[in-house]
Amino acid sequence: MKKVCIVMGSDSDLSVMEGCMKRLDAFGVPYEVRVVSAHRTPAAAETLAKNARADGFGVIIAAAGKAAHLGGVIAAYTTLPVIGVPIKTSMMGGLDSLLSMVQMPKGIPVACVAVDGADNAAILAVQMLAIEDAALSDQLTKFKADMADEVAAKDEKVRAQFA
Amino acid sequence: MKKVCIVMGSDSDLSVMEGCMKRLDAFGVPYEVRVVSAHRTPAAAETLAKNARADGFGVIIAAAGKAAHLGGVIAAYTTLPVIGVPIKTSMMGGLDSLLSMVQMPKGIPVACVAVDGADNAAILAVQMLAIEDAALSDQLTKFKADMADEVAAKDEKVRAQFA
Amino acid sequence: MKKVCIVMGSDSDLSVMEGCMKRLDAFGVPYEVRVVSAHRTPAAAETLAKNARADGFGVIIAAAGKAAHLGGVIAAYTTLPVIGVPIKTSMMGGLDSLLSMVQMPKGIPVACVAVDGADNAAILAVQMLAIEDAALSDQLTKFKADMADEVAAKDEKVRAQFA
Amino acid sequence: MKKVCIVMGSDSDLSVMEGCMKRLDAFGVPYEVRVVSAHRTPAAAETLAKNARADGFGVIIAAAGKAAHLGGVIAAYTTLPVIGVPIKTSMMGGLDSLLSMVQMPKGIPVACVAVDGADNAAILAVQMLAIEDAALSDQLTKFKADMADEVAAKDEKVRAQFA
Amino acid sequence: MKKVCIVMGSDSDLSVMEGCMKRLDAFGVPYEVRVVSAHRTPAAAETLAKNARADGFGVIIAAAGKAAHLGGVIAAYTTLPVIGVPIKTSMMGGLDSLLSMVQMPKGIPVACVAVDGADNAAILAVQMLAIEDAALSDQLTKFKADMADEVAAKDEKVRAQFA
Amino acid sequence: MKKVCIVMGSDSDLSVMEGCMKRLDAFGVPYEVRVVSAHRTPAAAETLAKNARADGFGVIIAAAGKAAHLGGVIAAYTTLPVIGVPIKTSMMGGLDSLLSMVQMPKGIPVACVAVDGADNAAILAVQMLAIEDAALSDQLTKFKADMADEVAAKDEKVRAQFA
Amino acid sequence: MKKVCIVMGSDSDLSVMEGCMKRLDAFGVPYEVRVVSAHRTPAAAETLAKNARADGFGVIIAAAGKAAHLGGVIAAYTTLPVIGVPIKTSMMGGLDSLLSMVQMPKGIPVACVAVDGADNAAILAVQMLAIEDAALSDQLTKFKADMADEVAAKDEKVRAQFA
Amino acid sequence: MKKVCIVMGSDSDLSVMEGCMKRLDAFGVPYEVRVVSAHRTPAAAETLAKNARADGFGVIIAAAGKAAHLGGVIAAYTTLPVIGVPIKTSMMGGLDSLLSMVQMPKGIPVACVAVDGADNAAILAVQMLAIEDAALSDQLTKFKADMADEVAAKDEKVRAQFA
Repeated sequence: MKKVCIVMGSDSDLSVMEGCMKRLDAFGVPYEVRVVSAHRTPAAAETLAKNARADGFGVIIAAAGKAAHLGGVIAAYTTLPVIGVPIKTSMMGGLDSLLSMVQMPKGIPVACVAVDGADNAAILAVQMLAIEDAALSDQLTKFKADMADEVAAKDEKVRAQFA
Repeated sequence: MKKVCIVMGSDSDLSVMEGCMKRLDAFGVPYEVRVVSAHRTPAAAETLAKNARADGFGVIIAAAGKAAHLGGVIAAYTTLPVIGVPIKTSMMGGLDSLLSMVQMPKGIPVACVAVDGADNAAILAVQMLAIEDAALSDQLTKFKADMADEVAAKDEKVRAQFA
Repeated sequence: MKKVCIVMGSDSDLSVMEGCMKRLDAFGVPYEVRVVSAHRTPAAAETLAKNARADGFGVIIAAAGKAAHLGGVIAAYTTLPVIGVPIKTSMMGGLDSLLSMVQMPKGIPVACVAVDGADNAAILAVQMLAIEDAALSDQLTKFKADMADEVAAKDEKVRAQFA
Repeated sequence: MKKVCIVMGSDSDLSVMEGCMKRLDAFGVPYEVRVVSAHRTPAAAETLAKNARADGFGVIIAAAGKAAHLGGVIAAYTTLPVIGVPIKTSMMGGLDSLLSMVQMPKGIPVACVAVDGADNAAILAVQMLAIEDAALSDQLTKFKADMADEVAAKDEKVRAQFA
Repeated sequence: MKKVCIVMGSDSDLSVMEGCMKRLDAFGVPYEVRVVSAHRTPAAAETLAKNARADGFGVIIAAAGKAAHLGGVIAAYTTLPVIGVPIKTSMMGGLDSLLSMVQMPKGIPVACVAVDGADNAAILAVQMLAIEDAALSDQLTKFKADMADEVAAKDEKVRAQFA
Repeated sequence: MKKVCIVMGSDSDLSVMEGCMKRLDAFGVPYEVRVVSAHRTPAAAETLAKNARADGFGVIIAAAGKAAHLGGVIAAYTTLPVIGVPIKTSMMGGLDSLLSMVQMPKGIPVACVAVDGADNAAILAVQMLAIEDAALSDQLTKFKADMADEVAAKDEKVRAQFA
Repeated sequence: MKKVCIVMGSDSDLSVMEGCMKRLDAFGVPYEVRVVSAHRTPAAAETLAKNARADGFGVIIAAAGKAAHLGGVIAAYTTLPVIGVPIKTSMMGGLDSLLSMVQMPKGIPVACVAVDGADNAAILAVQMLAIEDAALSDQLTKFKADMADEVAAKDEKVRAQFA
Repeated sequence: MKKVCIVMGSDSDLSVMEGCMKRLDAFGVPYEVRVVSAHRTPAAAETLAKNARADGFGVIIAAAGKAAHLGGVIAAYTTLPVIGVPIKTSMMGGLDSLLSMVQMPKGIPVACVAVDGADNAAILAVQMLAIEDAALSDQLTKFKADMADEVAAKDEKVRAQFA
């Protein structure tokens, strides 16, 4: 199975991104975790991106904050889909990170998820890998059913509480 | 090859989305185009989403404006990756569409591209389909090279103009 | 008397929404409380909305945060008025929730109140039910008078403090 | 049948609000149209609001732009539900109008629709009047079905165009 | 000397507004403090505004948050200058309060100061009263000089610290 | 009578500010008009501000756009009240001008009106001059009455149109 | 004299940036103009940045719009000062470009000027080159004097017009 | 070597700006620190700016919050490059400070860094001084290499942690 590459612009993003690793673990999807900065280690970003497909990766998840260029810089050097996770900042709750990631110019898309959306980045990566993988697709179906059951249980509880 | 499903919330989004169809045509990726409203034809949205994988689709592209729920509503009913294209509005240039698409809650991601980013939605869809498809991946590599050549030609011209 | 249906996208919204239940209790207006997710349990949202009028509800209050589609998804399946309560988030104080709820496209309105405006959602629901109900209308008149008295008492106190 | 009172802060809002009158006409719901300013004719606003219920109105729709106080000023003097229509401005597409209308303090709600959402204000008013009116409720059901048919027709056309 | 009327929409604004009272005390300018709500006690707001000039007031300071209509509602009923103090909220740091106060339509101005700018509201009121009052004007000149001295002292200290 | 000093950061603001001159003309309040830049002619701004009171001015109106420092720079050098008119820009409809004017730090207020609020700046200046001037105050009362009549006439017309 | 390197992300930025070239011409400062994309020709950006100092450049001006990474990507590969010109977009007047440029993380600054501030970018570059260049510094002094004269002439004209 | 002048609008900005002093210390670049207010001590700001070049300064760093005019006021009186550090506020995370600093009108640029970007302001100042200073330029090259090593070390650690 293709691996997922999780790249962070700073190790301070690690606590937010742990939800991403846990979710991939739950799906049994292999991954590697990197700390690479678009601005401080641009060569490492370039190398990672250029080799990603050959290194067995199928999707790259890039998390960064403020002027969050990491997703775009990686996308510039690979044809793999790149998922961007804008990290929350004190500038309007991360609007700087979000706009820096999502407003990519024509030709080089980044697939942006919600601010601090580490968990959803993992699920989106699994969805991409599951396009041609029936077993993984079945896992996603089960995951959706489990989520629905969880909400339904809460619904039962709250209905009873106010009945 | 898996098809791409392009869904619009309104046929007024058609002119923006034509760049998406042209790009998929250029890559030779098959697609279908639909007009389905999360609010006016929710049953159609549900049916489309539930059957999408069985109908041979690999990726769904959803374009909508204002309180742009279409991507989320479709993502609720499928395990395929859903790409969201927020349509420009007069409310801060489409910030309403963008936030309504990208800020999806835990469990149900939408892969958001730039406001009016129809072309990039197509490229992102191709990138997803190319994860396991070497020929399509080669096409993406060539596409990147062509873009670079185009920019380089402009660079030559502008350098000369101001030399 | 018609009941009010209070729906939350997540039980984490419960603490904010308690002001809504207390206000309806104070008016003696019957209600039920549900946890239903537009994205995780869309079928439950559909069922709730489709049956709401037949189940004796007169108004639906939907509270959700971030890409807050719940109000719109419910409004798609019912002709009852739907009141939206955008929940505060870290994205510009809930501007994402607000725009996702209020910027509904033509044909399917959601009656939006302030961010975290649970109490006002209840009062608005009572106002709707009181259009044809003189006794309930009298209660609203008394409620307004009580509020005015409360403010007047504070006015007295503060005037004296600085006299 | 209870009437709807449509109030504008300025006759310059008339062209936006005409969609509201047309929609009420289509439902056969009686209405009156007023130009009343919260700041220039506050006494007229007060009189209108205080007498609205006795004058046979069931719902008030208030449209205003910029520091859009009209909805709140009317809501202060009536127990009828007040629907606010924020008018588009050059300040971030009407964010000033929207926030001035929707962010009402505890005790006095305004039911806000989208910026320039005149049509939806009418539909919301009809929904409120239809809570206890089966015939009007049936009209709303038909209206929803007609909208769905319209979207479905466009879907057919667009599908064929790109098939 | 003309008095200043300080009006708050809620006694929860009292802690922010205390800087206003202290500043007026320092200038020896007489004032009264009121709690009056544009929406909960509109009649009190009207009475206060209509009588303000006759009651010996020269300037009115109105502090309110969220959909902050208080300044506008008072300005509607008086020809005295009205200073608005937008109170900080969790909605983008008080942008809702600011826009609701400052974006007044043609004909009825509110003189808006910074979010939570209680101290500056007092100084502005003193400036207005000092237009025709040489003694008060001299006090303002001295106040400016004292501020300058204070900053100069800090400048000395910091220069020395890093010399 | 004290004069009003109208200062613009650029003569490109002249068309917006003409409403200000017309309104002062209507009230018979004398004024002078200046083009002074906080950044390009700071010495002129300083001289103007320092001499304003001695030169017979009672109020200064400062209009500027973008990083609109003009109001603050003038307020730094005078004890007269300074009214700020933020000029509309392409940056969020003038939010840059507005925040640069209204968010003044403690000690030096600027009385901010709406974006492009030239007319209201004039009315506010008249209100300040009318604090101690009964005749001018009567003119303001008449002005308010005329505005009310104008709105009432429009109300009559629109009521009739839709009756 | 050191040269200035003007880099644009797209030749569509050329019309905005022409003010930059004209200003440098006026100061007699040599420059070269390039079209280089952070995402489409990242290798060209890297080469340009790495060689800039050796190629005789003293300052780099980078203009880009939307997710404007160009300034940051160049700054990553050089120790020369990089001036960023955010290009206006339809997303809140270019707030996306501005935040993507100015919010650079620790270690790699970009010197950001106003949205579409091409002229000021040139002046800033000249100021940097003039730190150690007395003749250029004198030119800047003269430039400031000329600007002041120009404003003073407009001041004269407007004063006369309204005298 | 030319000195750097660090100016703060208030000594409350000192804790944010300490990173600036530390970074200049690390580069061995001499500096002075001042507290000067554009509004409370405008004469001091003018004097500082006018004499800066003669006093041996090469660059000025100005830090201020809210309606942050300090950078512009200083830039008005000097031909040295002025770097602006917008200080974080509770108004959208410092968007007021940022726009007040960066949106400077034609003719008078301020080189803006990120909100609270004190460290980057120092690095940018060093870059300016290093244009003509090979030794300082070498220090910057080493600084970049050290940063890269630091990120690489974190990369190693995180890779190992998740391997």
